[in-house]
Amino acid sequence: MKTINRLDIDDARQLIAGAAAHAGSIGVPMCIAITDESGQLIAFERMEGGKVTSTTIAIDKAFTAAAARKATHEYGSASQPGAPAYGINAAIGGRLMVVAGGLPVIWQGEVVGGIGVSSGTPAQDQAVAQAGIDAWTARNEAARG
Amino acid sequence: MKTINRLDIDDARQLIAGAAAHAGSIGVPMCIAITDESGQLIAFERMEGGKVTSTTIAIDKAFTAAAARKATHEYGSASQPGAPAYGINAAIGGRLMVVAGGLPVIWQGEVVGGIGVSSGTPAQDQAVAQAGIDAWTARNEAARG
Amino acid sequence: MKTINRLDIDDARQLIAGAAAHAGSIGVPMCIAITDESGQLIAFERMEGGKVTSTTIAIDKAFTAAAARKATHEYGSASQPGAPAYGINAAIGGRLMVVAGGLPVIWQGEVVGGIGVSSGTPAQDQAVAQAGIDAWTARNEAARG
Amino acid sequence: MKTINRLDIDDARQLIAGAAAHAGSIGVPMCIAITDESGQLIAFERMEGGKVTSTTIAIDKAFTAAAARKATHEYGSASQPGAPAYGINAAIGGRLMVVAGGLPVIWQGEVVGGIGVSSGTPAQDQAVAQAGIDAWTARNEAARG
Repeated sequence: MKTINRLDIDDARQLIAGAAAHAGSIGVPMCIAITDESGQLIAFERMEGGKVTSTTIAIDKAFTAAAARKATHEYGSASQPGAPAYGINAAIGGRLMVVAGGLPVIWQGEVVGGIGVSSGTPAQDQAVAQAGIDAWTARNEAARG
Repeated sequence: MKTINRLDIDDARQLIAGAAAHAGSIGVPMCIAITDESGQLIAFERMEGGKVTSTTIAIDKAFTAAAARKATHEYGSASQPGAPAYGINAAIGGRLMVVAGGLPVIWQGEVVGGIGVSSGTPAQDQAVAQAGIDAWTARNEAARG
Repeated sequence: MKTINRLDIDDARQLIAGAAAHAGSIGVPMCIAITDESGQLIAFERMEGGKVTSTTIAIDKAFTAAAARKATHEYGSASQPGAPAYGINAAIGGRLMVVAGGLPVIWQGEVVGGIGVSSGTPAQDQAVAQAGIDAWTARNEAARG
Repeated sequence: MKTINRLDIDDARQLIAGAAAHAGSIGVPMCIAITDESGQLIAFERMEGGKVTSTTIAIDKAFTAAAARKATHEYGSASQPGAPAYGINAAIGGRLMVVAGGLPVIWQGEVVGGIGVSSGTPAQDQAVAQAGIDAWTARNEAARG
């Protein structure tokens, strides 16, 4: 038997709120998904103007980042033509996302969930995902005093 | 050319909050999904203790209710052995849900979205979905004065 | 943040060994799958003579039992024609199993994983899954002294 | 009518044990899958720390290696842009794996199964798969005296 840590629904809401705030500030409405450490969806929001195609993409970015414990943009580099993981973007029925915008959520050195963002450029998606994590981390640290 | 009305993200949040409040009051944590009138996901929450299997089921109940403009329990009746819609539960890769808990969200006589709830008994799921709609409707009516 | 308990790989091996021993004793080779509490596969064995179709069925029974925290045969009763969950067998792309042979694995009152068995009659599958749990439980209790 | 040779469950366990031993020695926990010569799963283990995404990937690497009778890294070369098999990574719903880590298991010049490994770098995955085969081969040769 073993014990693992994972995000709860309040964490998920904070991550979405932090990401949405940054998306608003750059004027790019996003789809934002949060998964637990196993890649299972906890919460999702499509902001006004977020793309319908981005629903699945955001969910799958969060799934990939959490369940593979790796940022999706790292898969992007590793899967270029000639690189070792070339072709992995079609794995798991296409759920393995290699486009930027999926980040593992880390707590005390351990992956406890994932955030996936889609609707902007991949760089914007990644920045918005990072902003969600930064807001959540800042709030956690403030709570610990 | 035509114009359609649909739920926005604030409506979706109100629907989830109303449903979650009722789920809390009966002590059954739920997965709650809101779609627009086309059946596309707007928002989702898995409450603490909501089932992992219910993620897809809640999303698909909301999809069915919105996009078919019919409560999922009505399909339950219509798809019994010998009934006209028998077998439809396997349609659309299994996304056409015939179990109670999916309701169309109606505004001025028109379907503008769907709510899907899963993790309890089908009767509990349906009651929680209805509670979400009731809370949203009450708030809309209050806003109109 | 929250903490959950789940089976580890040694638990999974014990569950498979206990189930396989009973399958051998009744002369029905089985496919046996073990998932964690989120329904993600930990270990799988197809015994000599286990059915190829039963690979997916066993995995999906374990997934259902763990992630819905319910024995698959309970879904069997609840989804008969006229019953509340009628039609749910096609949910989640058909992964929601309503045939006996999937059991949640419970530790200190909490679902920590699932076992799924397939290749015999549903009653045999269920008995073999139960035997796996019984062997694992007995060993745990012996270990605690 | 014809007769084919294939791995049995004891072979599968030896292959997993050999692979897991090497994975342990390099400190990279893996998902390890063994299929028969038709690509059908015989056994699977997710080591402590193996990635959830790697479950499907390991199974599909073993499937590809056995059923196509080709190491997955050979498909990696053959499917680069401009090469003859370009695009094949999306075939069979994405199950045709072109990333290293899937090897056919050969006995007396004939493919009798496949091993697929995932969670490390593709080079690590391939080395661990090879270690599984080497351990199994050594044991077979020792058994023959």
